[in-house]
Amino acid sequence: MTIDATSILHRIAGTLEARKGADPSSSYVAKLLSDGQDAILRKIGEESVETLLASKSGDRLHLVRETADLWFHCLVMLAYHGLGPDDVLAELHRREGISGIDEKASRSRG
Amino acid sequence: MTIDATSILHRIAGTLEARKGADPSSSYVAKLLSDGQDAILRKIGEESVETLLASKSGDRLHLVRETADLWFHCLVMLAYHGLGPDDVLAELHRREGISGIDEKASRSRG
Amino acid sequence: MTIDATSILHRIAGTLEARKGADPSSSYVAKLLSDGQDAILRKIGEESVETLLASKSGDRLHLVRETADLWFHCLVMLAYHGLGPDDVLAELHRREGISGIDEKASRSRG
Amino acid sequence: MTIDATSILHRIAGTLEARKGADPSSSYVAKLLSDGQDAILRKIGEESVETLLASKSGDRLHLVRETADLWFHCLVMLAYHGLGPDDVLAELHRREGISGIDEKASRSRG
Repeated sequence: MTIDATSILHRIAGTLEARKGADPSSSYVAKLLSDGQDAILRKIGEESVETLLASKSGDRLHLVRETADLWFHCLVMLAYHGLGPDDVLAELHRREGISGIDEKASRSRG
Repeated sequence: MTIDATSILHRIAGTLEARKGADPSSSYVAKLLSDGQDAILRKIGEESVETLLASKSGDRLHLVRETADLWFHCLVMLAYHGLGPDDVLAELHRREGISGIDEKASRSRG
Repeated sequence: MTIDATSILHRIAGTLEARKGADPSSSYVAKLLSDGQDAILRKIGEESVETLLASKSGDRLHLVRETADLWFHCLVMLAYHGLGPDDVLAELHRREGISGIDEKASRSRG
Repeated sequence: MTIDATSILHRIAGTLEARKGADPSSSYVAKLLSDGQDAILRKIGEESVETLLASKSGDRLHLVRETADLWFHCLVMLAYHGLGPDDVLAELHRREGISGIDEKASRSRG
């Protein structure tokens, strides 16, 4: 199976955008966006810890699910700020280049 | 500009794969993979907190950079476990469907 | 009011110890200890994020409550490992000395 | 050895108070307080993750050290806000009572 990351991320971003201002009782995301920034950040914190524990458990299926949860809630946070996956991917793309992605990552570490 | 998420994520995943077993002094990622799982997870924890603080700061450029750092280190963790971005995107794709991405996310919450 | 930290921490530690092996339905801590290490660590992760958000909110009453939640769940984690507040306080005490608490903290940073 | 938690925590709180406004180059804490709230919160995030990883490692000596680091940086955060360990201990004490510490903790979960 070929995974079309671009399409998947765009569809999710579109869905999140459509949930803004929607009736909080209509969906999980509408509720989360309505609860505000701290509620979203709380979820990112929770999913980060779940991802760490899943990694330590060595259960790869569980790890994939928790990482998906983490990325999904990052997309909700980005949508909250009027941003989307393209902004993050453009930044990752920007770091690719002459010296390579990880040297760039290294430099950004400070 | 059209962002080709699929290509970008695949190129990064390829780079990370090539860093496995490389001389730790040769690059940031080779060092991180050589330091082991806890070193990678420590970075994910750090970048999660940076992402939270960037979101609270309201500085969108800063937020995009920190989210890119978080996703990048998630990709390193996935590579450590022999996984890649396609696994996470397939999971996100799997959650799309009849009832929509966020109802699925809601259900996965437990 | 004089706060007797030693007595308070010892009483809590005693309560936690008594909850080990108790019927999970009998109390919050008995349930948490019964759920196991990851459940406890998940709470520490959650309370850390709550503490960060409370600090950013500037609401000092809220901050005190979240810090109390964080320390309380650290005490549960310590109890899970057969440790108690005295172990942590002895370590903090050990760092006090000729060069002072923060120089020691600095050295332990690595 | 009897650990006098009250004295230890008060001495540390006194030291932290004295570091406020001190030359940042004079000590680790003076530097951290001078760097501001986000720098302190970043440390709390880092130490929380270190505590989680230490717990998973099962190395109890390491766990005690990381928990001490976490509590220490909580004390720095409290000092930043003009608060101290007594505020947190009074809150823990407040939760002790008729129904016991963990029922109170349970109620505060919501």
